[in-house]
Amino acid sequence: MLIDIALDAMGSDKAPEPEIRGAILACRSLNVRVHLVGPEPMLRPRLTSALGFIGARLPIEIVHAEEHIGMDEKAAHAVRTKRNSSMRIGLRLVKEKAAAGFFTAGNTGAGMATAKMVLSALPGVDRPALAVVMPTLSGSPCVLLDVGANVDCKPQNLEQFAIMGELYARSVLRVPRPRVGILSVGEEDGKGNDLTREATELFKRLPINFIGNVEGRDIYSGNADVIVCDGFVGNVALKTSEGMSRLVREMLKASLTQTVTAQVGALLSRRAFNAFRRRLDPSEYGGAPLLGVRGVCIIGHGSSNDRAIMNGIRVASEFAQARINERLEREFSTRPTGHPDGPATHLPIQ
Amino acid sequence: MLIDIALDAMGSDKAPEPEIRGAILACRSLNVRVHLVGPEPMLRPRLTSALGFIGARLPIEIVHAEEHIGMDEKAAHAVRTKRNSSMRIGLRLVKEKAAAGFFTAGNTGAGMATAKMVLSALPGVDRPALAVVMPTLSGSPCVLLDVGANVDCKPQNLEQFAIMGELYARSVLRVPRPRVGILSVGEEDGKGNDLTREATELFKRLPINFIGNVEGRDIYSGNADVIVCDGFVGNVALKTSEGMSRLVREMLKASLTQTVTAQVGALLSRRAFNAFRRRLDPSEYGGAPLLGVRGVCIIGHGSSNDRAIMNGIRVASEFAQARINERLEREFSTRPTGHPDGPATHLPIQ
Repeated sequence: MLIDIALDAMGSDKAPEPEIRGAILACRSLNVRVHLVGPEPMLRPRLTSALGFIGARLPIEIVHAEEHIGMDEKAAHAVRTKRNSSMRIGLRLVKEKAAAGFFTAGNTGAGMATAKMVLSALPGVDRPALAVVMPTLSGSPCVLLDVGANVDCKPQNLEQFAIMGELYARSVLRVPRPRVGILSVGEEDGKGNDLTREATELFKRLPINFIGNVEGRDIYSGNADVIVCDGFVGNVALKTSEGMSRLVREMLKASLTQTVTAQVGALLSRRAFNAFRRRLDPSEYGGAPLLGVRGVCIIGHGSSNDRAIMNGIRVASEFAQARINERLEREFSTRPTGHPDGPATHLPIQ
Repeated sequence: MLIDIALDAMGSDKAPEPEIRGAILACRSLNVRVHLVGPEPMLRPRLTSALGFIGARLPIEIVHAEEHIGMDEKAAHAVRTKRNSSMRIGLRLVKEKAAAGFFTAGNTGAGMATAKMVLSALPGVDRPALAVVMPTLSGSPCVLLDVGANVDCKPQNLEQFAIMGELYARSVLRVPRPRVGILSVGEEDGKGNDLTREATELFKRLPINFIGNVEGRDIYSGNADVIVCDGFVGNVALKTSEGMSRLVREMLKASLTQTVTAQVGALLSRRAFNAFRRRLDPSEYGGAPLLGVRGVCIIGHGSSNDRAIMNGIRVASEFAQARINERLEREFSTRPTGHPDGPATHLPIQ
């Protein structure tokens, strides 16, 4: 049986080409049917020609959406005004169970806002969180959440992030007993700010493998499988890494070309950097899941190429198969209530 | 005239050798007299032999301190119990004007705590801040503060960090009109958390070149000369960078050795990485100044080598010559008062 995945055909910077080719790659290598969501008059001829070129009949369907949200549009405004955006129509397919998951390489803020609006949060989840998988020195991945700019979090929000991240690592990434840490400024117990200290007390009571505070460098060390932080800190960590990675690459490229002759150096560095990019590039990891909404929503990088789109579709189908939402729902519904700031959804009706 | 600099002889991981050799390098190339603070019976023969070896008479004096604070000691406890540590005695030389500045490559937390205690904060400064200079793509440095773990800051703290960082960039790094940004999660004005939004309003009223929000990647982009954040976020950004840099180096090394034959690859990468390290290594930048205390205190990395120690001494003497504390004191004393949470030190006596 094929798994139905809705794909925002208008998401990436170079849409719809990477989406069309990524959908074809996905259908040829994975057990999926892709619903390509975007303007049909524009997509139909391109898809036909791409399919004709490889001479294949593949399970790809076009779902018409006349609008789409641009990368530079302000999320809140775009989500409110564009009622027929490819994001909204794609996510509606998930809500109506016509698709088991949705992937977009578009505007992250708009994707999150649309998913929250169309799918709504799972019971017990106050704020859905965006999780990214980081490569580490040990080779095993590390889940960092929230990186979706949930700023000014309460300890209960971090607690929910921990539960969601742990389940992600366990059920999708197949880490048997994920080590969960709180991102802080020192390893000792008392180190941190008010938020992390209070969250630590909540984490200690959770049925997870909580390893206490970890530091920024542990995002890449492999010392933790799941690292929890508020969305402000997560965003800074992620974007600082982006900037650092770019600087290091530029500097090393310059060093290499100085070390040997310019031509040999350029050739070597091109080869080395391509190999390197394949290992580090987040697009290989297939995008970031929005955890805590009722349905599978994966958000990829705007620079996604064919392969990154295919990986996004793959991750969406893995999420659907892992039934992570059903498991999260069960997790949250069986948790003891009584958190001072949490919703009291499970109290018996008086 | 020579500038007197107190040097913690027992700071670095391999102390006192890098300190002794760094002091010699400094005295040979800079206009300084170094007060080497540490256990005299241990330092004297080593200094004599090092000086004898180069056959020089240099302005290096030993100031006896029988204790020192180890890298793994808890800062608060060590500062309280070790009353004759090399840090405390070195900083006392600054307080008593026997030295114009102090440099240590030791325990950062202990260095900051000792400096705050011995030197105390400048009037108008609620919390001294540790500033680091980051390399950028554009080649010009970027001052990031606070990275000294002042967690749970108020908007007024960030405002003071901005004033101090701006003066540092202007008077020591010689940036004519430093662009000052707030580290946040998006570039638009409303983006950020409660702290950054409130601080933005205060920054707008300062007589500085405030450029609004910047993002994590701007730490390395060269788009800002000074980036202000609370110490929690700054610490995460700095340590995330460390981790990322290590990961990128390891991965590129692996890529390089795969690309060409193992021996050539290893040789090339060794050369490239040495050149690279010289450009990126924070020790080349000479350590992080603690801004806002009454006196010059520069803190370097524990892994400092001879050259890094010399650079730390250089930065301490540059700070002393720039008279940054006098200028900060003037800056804060002429500022309008009336910040809700700030000290009201400048109100006329009733």
